[in-house]
Amino acid sequence: MNKRLGKQTVCFKKAVGIKSYFSIVGKNEDEGPLKGSFDMVETDALFGQDCWEKAESKLLKTAMESVIAKAGLKEKDIDYIFAGDLINQCFSSHFSVRDLDIPFFGIYGACSTMAESLSLAAMAIAGGFAHHTLAATSSHFCSSEKQFRLPLEYGGQRTPTAQRTVTGSGAVILSDDPSLPIQITHITTGKVKDFGVTDPNNMGAAMAPAAAETIRAHFEDTGFSPDDYDLIVTGDLGSVGKSLLLELLSENGLDIKKVYNDCGCMIYSQEEQDVHSGGSGCGCSASVLCGKLLGEMEKGSLSNILFVATGALLSTNSCFQGESIPSVAHAVKISLK
Amino acid sequence: MNKRLGKQTVCFKKAVGIKSYFSIVGKNEDEGPLKGSFDMVETDALFGQDCWEKAESKLLKTAMESVIAKAGLKEKDIDYIFAGDLINQCFSSHFSVRDLDIPFFGIYGACSTMAESLSLAAMAIAGGFAHHTLAATSSHFCSSEKQFRLPLEYGGQRTPTAQRTVTGSGAVILSDDPSLPIQITHITTGKVKDFGVTDPNNMGAAMAPAAAETIRAHFEDTGFSPDDYDLIVTGDLGSVGKSLLLELLSENGLDIKKVYNDCGCMIYSQEEQDVHSGGSGCGCSASVLCGKLLGEMEKGSLSNILFVATGALLSTNSCFQGESIPSVAHAVKISLK
Repeated sequence: MNKRLGKQTVCFKKAVGIKSYFSIVGKNEDEGPLKGSFDMVETDALFGQDCWEKAESKLLKTAMESVIAKAGLKEKDIDYIFAGDLINQCFSSHFSVRDLDIPFFGIYGACSTMAESLSLAAMAIAGGFAHHTLAATSSHFCSSEKQFRLPLEYGGQRTPTAQRTVTGSGAVILSDDPSLPIQITHITTGKVKDFGVTDPNNMGAAMAPAAAETIRAHFEDTGFSPDDYDLIVTGDLGSVGKSLLLELLSENGLDIKKVYNDCGCMIYSQEEQDVHSGGSGCGCSASVLCGKLLGEMEKGSLSNILFVATGALLSTNSCFQGESIPSVAHAVKISLK
Repeated sequence: MNKRLGKQTVCFKKAVGIKSYFSIVGKNEDEGPLKGSFDMVETDALFGQDCWEKAESKLLKTAMESVIAKAGLKEKDIDYIFAGDLINQCFSSHFSVRDLDIPFFGIYGACSTMAESLSLAAMAIAGGFAHHTLAATSSHFCSSEKQFRLPLEYGGQRTPTAQRTVTGSGAVILSDDPSLPIQITHITTGKVKDFGVTDPNNMGAAMAPAAAETIRAHFEDTGFSPDDYDLIVTGDLGSVGKSLLLELLSENGLDIKKVYNDCGCMIYSQEEQDVHSGGSGCGCSASVLCGKLLGEMEKGSLSNILFVATGALLSTNSCFQGESIPSVAHAVKISLK
């Protein structure tokens, strides 16, 4: 039987295998420190489409079709897709799956979506409901700017705490094949918490307490410590949220500094790429996981990672209404067999 | 082991019990044919709040807190919440759960949300990941009109095929207690399909083919026939979509007429309440299920129902861009023990 540990964590009786993974990013993302880590780079920001939403949809669809092909599978082999994105009513996800003949669960977790989709897709396998599931998400700088911020043409200035939405997508196929070397063994599911931060240009500060809370719960529920990991990686707090997280955890007597990084800090060079506090968007942690991190695990240079994707659950309306920003973080433990 | 039947259906090895259910609606919904079926009626459309989004959030939060209390449980007893709504970035759900200390999975399935949340919440129990899960959703006429259509004050005329968004919410607590009399035994998960309908004022037509496809798959996967059900209920095709569904199924040699109804047709009196094609919104099928239908099951007057919630996965942007409407339908079989 799968085992519930503490209040927020599940340990899978049989670890869930990662059969394949695929990442695709835009031009800027491949000019940063992770250059060369991604499966595909598309320099046309419109991806051959006529608007940003359809561009993002094409980006996500490409990731999904490619990860199925990379696994040597066909559409009919995939039992469920779990996917979502940032665009109102998850436009990108729905328009990307309408031509795929696969049962679909739509999710919304803002930038925590990659960890949420991996968690649910892993539960579907570990619960005996599926042989293969697909977890995916995407974001696009231009569709996000258009929806959440200002028209691109306006050239608005941004605060130093703001993050740049990554144009990218990541997709993973999970499997019940016990021989696969990279495996999901635990998931820790976050609670939605609101810590009173009201500045939509400082989402790192809004999300850091949610990440701290989920990491704390993961260690409390499992008995693991930071020493059990080569890497604990949040996605995506940016540099402001990253420092805050370390501070919040140290107040709780937890020091993860030696093994900690953040996808929003990894994907861009903050000195050279004018991205302010770093990367953000569902596609940030998704493309870093499916580009860099799972690649390093396959090479054997990483053995145990805790992937903690964080979501700021605001909307333009909630900001205009002066509301603070609820946030959430979900953690997934990925280990070499 | 849980058993996968065909391509889209799961049969739970141990049926998942419904421990409690709660419905809450606005004034108009309690003036229709289902008057008196709901747990709570709130005549203040603002629910004591200062804007429509917060009103909907309060509505959903009331349903969640009430269903936990009705089950005789506390927050700490609930292992996961699965919830979503129609408002951009699921505003209503996130602001309703930020004070609840419960792990949260956010979902987006438009008006299919109640069946999607029930499916995932049942999988979490049947997979051995949880003892109690909460599935919920909501919609509000005013927050939906504001977001998707026209300012209320404008008094715009609507086409005869348009539906009225229900102000309402439904919430269910599922449990691994095998003694509970009302049980979820099967789920059939829909694929996202786009049948080329482009009129956002005729969502019944856009969703009917998705409902037909999921009902057909349910019978094909399970070997059940319409005779195995007292009621097959879609939510919410309205009267236009309802006729279309029957036509589409009969083209496939399936006649469900004798046991078929639609939540959008049940909740309002189309003759007396000026609702055009009927009710819609996530809260429509949720409040009809948690008000009328589970009540009838508890009384023993319904024994086997197939609850098929349908979602039109459009956004205002996709409509303005001339896109057709992808849609989805998920089915949940609920039976008396």
